Amino acid sequence: MRTIHVIGIGAGDPEQLTLQAVRALRSTDVFFVLDKGEVKSDLTRLRREMLRTHCPDGGYRVVEARDPERDRGADGASYSPAVGDWRSARADIYARLIAEELGEDGTGAFLVWGDPALYDSTIAILDEVRERGRVPFAYDVVPGISSVSALVARHRIGLNRVARPVQITTGRRLAESFPEGVDDVVVMLDAHQAFQRYADQDFHIYWGAYIGTPDEILEAGPIAEAAPRIERLRAEARERKGWIMDTYLLRRGSGDDRA
Amino acid sequence: MRTIHVIGIGAGDPEQLTLQAVRALRSTDVFFVLDKGEVKSDLTRLRREMLRTHCPDGGYRVVEARDPERDRGADGASYSPAVGDWRSARADIYARLIAEELGEDGTGAFLVWGDPALYDSTIAILDEVRERGRVPFAYDVVPGISSVSALVARHRIGLNRVARPVQITTGRRLAESFPEGVDDVVVMLDAHQAFQRYADQDFHIYWGAYIGTPDEILEAGPIAEAAPRIERLRAEARERKGWIMDTYLLRRGSGDDRA
Repeated sequence: MRTIHVIGIGAGDPEQLTLQAVRALRSTDVFFVLDKGEVKSDLTRLRREMLRTHCPDGGYRVVEARDPERDRGADGASYSPAVGDWRSARADIYARLIAEELGEDGTGAFLVWGDPALYDSTIAILDEVRERGRVPFAYDVVPGISSVSALVARHRIGLNRVARPVQITTGRRLAESFPEGVDDVVVMLDAHQAFQRYADQDFHIYWGAYIGTPDEILEAGPIAEAAPRIERLRAEARERKGWIMDTYLLRRGSGDDRA
Repeated sequence: MRTIHVIGIGAGDPEQLTLQAVRALRSTDVFFVLDKGEVKSDLTRLRREMLRTHCPDGGYRVVEARDPERDRGADGASYSPAVGDWRSARADIYARLIAEELGEDGTGAFLVWGDPALYDSTIAILDEVRERGRVPFAYDVVPGISSVSALVARHRIGLNRVARPVQITTGRRLAESFPEGVDDVVVMLDAHQAFQRYADQDFHIYWGAYIGTPDEILEAGPIAEAAPRIERLRAEARERKGWIMDTYLLRRGSGDDRA
């Protein structure tokens, strides 16, 4: 039976790999890399360095495939169906990779930045391939340090305040409205700096980009003061590197986590 | 200057340690262990085994201290102030440990199950000790695999559904009401099985106890069917081991994460 590992490899710092992840890397014959056609060569290089460090004897193959284009309509309502089509197209590719590139008893792996449980589609795509039933395989998931955990560790704060909830959401959702019933919100996938909408309100923001890498940038403070600084840092970094991965926590009030 | 590491050591599986955590363990002179006076000898043993495995040459000390009693009133309203008093009492102990047990250039560490960012008070207590200003020290936080990440990895599901938010909250909060605006809720610190209140509604539950340890128990399904099974498993396990650590995800609808 073919086996697939879905391996969370942490948010950018190669030392965020867990021992379980290292063991999974070492047991893998074929690594599947889906190329988004974007210039994220830093990330590709980081991933290759991880393999060189932890699988120094080689003995593995890296198989690259081109990711299908994703229809990112400006219309928010069409987001989920477009994701569904895209996932289905991706499942076609995964099925082919597993069937053609992996021997009957081979072990393959998908390396996922952060934690495969947060805003990543690998698990759902593998489920879809399994449901189709044409290529049987077993799979497991190795949890990773998410950018959320890495962000708050670098800021040395908790995600939640005492006995209170925290919500993790997307920039798109935050742009619509602030979530109800919570005063602590972590925002991911925010290409449009939705926090700016709340810059005149009583929030503290804890922001980070390229967390755990040599390019890491951290910024924090009352949102009215910090938002313009983040805007500038973000624009400069995007310009310099050609891409950005950032995450932030909005905390209502002073930022004192005992409040 | 004294240095303190707050090290997330994962949810129970010693292989969930990150390479960064292993490096921090190896650079530590004194490990501070606060004993809750509870019989969680499995956890104490697990922690000692981690040290034996990763610091085989010894050269470290383990200093144990008794945790102050925490006033857990039945009255929900008094929860936060009681936590505040307890934290202040704990800060007294931490300050004494750091001042008396650690040399001027020594490195100490607190080992935290899961991720120090989630429902753990170590960071806030250290902030309080630093604000008092009597014992200067530097500190850093090493993020860990939380029981939340470990739970969903074992169930091979995502925390969020496509483009949707997820909330992390407490059993106490869930017993009051279901959070607004979210259909995916992770519940921690639930001593009273608050999920039972929702057993007649349209939820899927993904539950786990002692996740990542040899005692791990997983259970999932439509809540009406799974709740009685979880109740029974939980009671049996508590009886057998004398303690339980469990976490669960409530997902509105069928449990299909593409819904």
